[in-house]
Amino acid sequence: MQPTLHTHSASTHSIRRNLYRILETSSGRKRGISLVFNLFLFILIALNALAIILHTVPSLHQKYHRFFVEFEIVSVILFTIEYLLRVWVCVENEKYHHPVFGRLRYVLSTTALIHLLAILPFYVTLFHTDLALIRLLRIFRIFRLFRITRYSKAYHVIQSVVEDKKEELVLSVSFLLFMLVIISSAMYYLEHATQPEAFSSIPATLWWGINAMATVGYGDIHPVTPLGKLLAGITAVMGIGLFALPTGILASGFAEHIRSQKTVRKHHCPHCGKEL
Amino acid sequence: MQPTLHTHSASTHSIRRNLYRILETSSGRKRGISLVFNLFLFILIALNALAIILHTVPSLHQKYHRFFVEFEIVSVILFTIEYLLRVWVCVENEKYHHPVFGRLRYVLSTTALIHLLAILPFYVTLFHTDLALIRLLRIFRIFRLFRITRYSKAYHVIQSVVEDKKEELVLSVSFLLFMLVIISSAMYYLEHATQPEAFSSIPATLWWGINAMATVGYGDIHPVTPLGKLLAGITAVMGIGLFALPTGILASGFAEHIRSQKTVRKHHCPHCGKEL
Amino acid sequence: MQPTLHTHSASTHSIRRNLYRILETSSGRKRGISLVFNLFLFILIALNALAIILHTVPSLHQKYHRFFVEFEIVSVILFTIEYLLRVWVCVENEKYHHPVFGRLRYVLSTTALIHLLAILPFYVTLFHTDLALIRLLRIFRIFRLFRITRYSKAYHVIQSVVEDKKEELVLSVSFLLFMLVIISSAMYYLEHATQPEAFSSIPATLWWGINAMATVGYGDIHPVTPLGKLLAGITAVMGIGLFALPTGILASGFAEHIRSQKTVRKHHCPHCGKEL
Amino acid sequence: MQPTLHTHSASTHSIRRNLYRILETSSGRKRGISLVFNLFLFILIALNALAIILHTVPSLHQKYHRFFVEFEIVSVILFTIEYLLRVWVCVENEKYHHPVFGRLRYVLSTTALIHLLAILPFYVTLFHTDLALIRLLRIFRIFRLFRITRYSKAYHVIQSVVEDKKEELVLSVSFLLFMLVIISSAMYYLEHATQPEAFSSIPATLWWGINAMATVGYGDIHPVTPLGKLLAGITAVMGIGLFALPTGILASGFAEHIRSQKTVRKHHCPHCGKEL
Repeated sequence: MQPTLHTHSASTHSIRRNLYRILETSSGRKRGISLVFNLFLFILIALNALAIILHTVPSLHQKYHRFFVEFEIVSVILFTIEYLLRVWVCVENEKYHHPVFGRLRYVLSTTALIHLLAILPFYVTLFHTDLALIRLLRIFRIFRLFRITRYSKAYHVIQSVVEDKKEELVLSVSFLLFMLVIISSAMYYLEHATQPEAFSSIPATLWWGINAMATVGYGDIHPVTPLGKLLAGITAVMGIGLFALPTGILASGFAEHIRSQKTVRKHHCPHCGKEL
Repeated sequence: MQPTLHTHSASTHSIRRNLYRILETSSGRKRGISLVFNLFLFILIALNALAIILHTVPSLHQKYHRFFVEFEIVSVILFTIEYLLRVWVCVENEKYHHPVFGRLRYVLSTTALIHLLAILPFYVTLFHTDLALIRLLRIFRIFRLFRITRYSKAYHVIQSVVEDKKEELVLSVSFLLFMLVIISSAMYYLEHATQPEAFSSIPATLWWGINAMATVGYGDIHPVTPLGKLLAGITAVMGIGLFALPTGILASGFAEHIRSQKTVRKHHCPHCGKEL
Repeated sequence: MQPTLHTHSASTHSIRRNLYRILETSSGRKRGISLVFNLFLFILIALNALAIILHTVPSLHQKYHRFFVEFEIVSVILFTIEYLLRVWVCVENEKYHHPVFGRLRYVLSTTALIHLLAILPFYVTLFHTDLALIRLLRIFRIFRLFRITRYSKAYHVIQSVVEDKKEELVLSVSFLLFMLVIISSAMYYLEHATQPEAFSSIPATLWWGINAMATVGYGDIHPVTPLGKLLAGITAVMGIGLFALPTGILASGFAEHIRSQKTVRKHHCPHCGKEL
Repeated sequence: MQPTLHTHSASTHSIRRNLYRILETSSGRKRGISLVFNLFLFILIALNALAIILHTVPSLHQKYHRFFVEFEIVSVILFTIEYLLRVWVCVENEKYHHPVFGRLRYVLSTTALIHLLAILPFYVTLFHTDLALIRLLRIFRIFRLFRITRYSKAYHVIQSVVEDKKEELVLSVSFLLFMLVIISSAMYYLEHATQPEAFSSIPATLWWGINAMATVGYGDIHPVTPLGKLLAGITAVMGIGLFALPTGILASGFAEHIRSQKTVRKHHCPHCGKEL
């Protein structure tokens, strides 16, 4: 559609558009290559997840350390190329149209930030020998696992349910937090004198509070005074009640979502997919 | 409306009315000042909550003790002034119209009592040196946290849901308590001979009972005899069933409330807020 | 209505009928005395419950032992008189009309059996000195607590909900038991070799199984082998799902019951109670 | 219906058809014998389940070992005969019509595989003396318990509910697993340095993760660092929310199933069972 004046620029544009179509799972042209590419990417991310998990098992770590490191290097190089290509082609998307500000906005989008955080720590550790920092940066590897959500239907469904019910969730979670602070503060004043180490401060008591409300009960910290036990009992009963609010909201939102999707499907022909 | 005969009285009345408008978040005149004042009060309460929590952390306690004490003194003075002003202006509210009995009824209202209990302990500790008493009175500081509920939408929603479903909640909670007493008594008779220290009395066994029904399971106390274990198993299963009653009620009440509010909003213009 | 031929018999019948009206909370004649009597009985049962609970507290036991024993004797005598009177007058009820077989059927009814079991152990302990037996019989005291259900609205509501949903509850609880046996058997075979004491037999493993399914987790027994942990994880996830069935049934049954009662109330005049 | 040319073949066919009717709970001819046979089989399976459970109790194991072994031998012989008969007569069922491929498909069906796995280990242990193998094969005995599902209404109801809601369950369980991996990985990086033994690797941390999300909390492994505790708190809150999805789906599916069955029953005469 765009009139081509300079051959060089035109061919660059054309390559960029085709690349954009391949990188994003498009339903139009270049669909075949796009599918192959995305399948490859999906497998690469899944293998990275597996490598991250298995690398922490001591017996495997010792035996296959070299292999894990090599796989890490290859993966990061591939992810880096993918990242640079995505930044280059993102201007094909109307949302990030401007060559400078569009790209900047794309780089600052959640997807791109997760992408960057998944690879950046690798390059940082190349130039640093500080072990504490390297250990800290390892946590960012988990962002590679997050990249798989691109291909997870479950993630998208639950994300849209959470967005639908945002208001109710914020309301009930904020009330949970409020009650958590109130109860933990009261428990601190009741138990601190008897158990100065377990209930050492209100922030430390919050750990008991959240587990009491969620009825986890690890047993590492629990009240021993009669009043403390009474408060813990009330907390357990109330906790179950309070957790019923957000969970009920999520469950009904999920049910509504599934029902509405089934309704949509029913109104379309099962053979051709067209609306009836 | 009230005819002003004496200039002095009239100006006092006028000041009182304006002050009343500022203290209560009014939508009419003095709205701007009211907003600023309430924002200031909200921040003061939030900072108090933070100070109460952080003051209990040993490392911060030692370092910033002086600062915490000074902030405490300033806060209490401000809250006291606010309290006295509120008692003075409350007669502007039709509910507390009478200059003596109206004020007395205001002082005895839940809001005012929480306000008083949040500041009174400070003055008591000034004239007492009994450490045990001072420690006990510290628990009343938590009432300052409760004052923030004034500004919490979540608190008001949940309060109205609880009031709506009061009958059902009382019914199911009273049944929970009845079963708790029955099960704990039975468990005491079954386990006391084997574990005389853990299950020392029925009130002590109630601690096990409430945690078993709420499936907390701290692990500090649990049955060891076959019959005791059988009863504990039945209790866990039954506990989940019994907790389903109040939680189901709360969740459905919450859902109804949200739905009814959304319906109200739909029947009003999103731009001007007027009814359609 | 019944023609009186013999004065003696007639007066006996008349006394019996009046007594029947007093013992059962009637809405007709003798209503005032009936209310007073039932209030007295309610208080007596509640005090018995309190005495049973407090008697087990060591400090109170030593101090007030004599008082507890005396209160026990008085209570049992009063309950025995009440029991004998109820058996005598039960023939006034159409259900237990026959003087011999009617009374026998009344004696074998749940209510009367609970009544008998609440007092019988006291008489048995009078003629026995076997401490083990006496200790065992104490558990039957709890039946006195059960007698309070006569006056508990919550108990009657939940009883009727359980009866309504009996079929569904039996179905889901039987499936729970089936899965419990399957999972515990599998866990025994997986963990017995590694932890022969904790997982000593399948019946012993059932204790782990029920707590795992109800997500209690006392921590006194838990798998340590990888396969055992995998099974425990699946059990926890499945347990939550399986418990959702009976609890969901109970919660919806409860909600239906409350709703239907509210509807009944709406269709009656709030002033005279008559149907509109 | 099938014309009989050779007397021998005809009588064999007739025996096979009658046997098929007896083995499967038929409502037509041979109903009486079928009922008796299935009752016998049900009791045999139930007794096997009981024997498997009681055999693991050390005290019973020593005393009645000989009896348990003899009962085992008799049961396996009976189950083997039943298995062979079922394979012989299965061709009477239209699904497995072909004498060779039909029988092969029957042998590979879930029901037949469970049947085979319940008896095969016995024969393997006859020819092997390797104790480790024998111990491993004992786990297959549990398949005998599974055979009772044939007669369990609860099992069939829940199976059909799970099939109805398969899509939603897969969706929510896959999201649960995704979050489990993410959270456990993050927890490993946060806690490994402080507790290298408890959080030894990501697969080991998954054990904590699943219990934290299901709010089990055995107490054998829990975070101690502030960041780890924060993550554990968020996990507990989120876990309850995420578990609400599959449980809500199951509960509503179960309620729908019960309701639809009650509707079917209502539309039929309670006396003759015919449609009204």
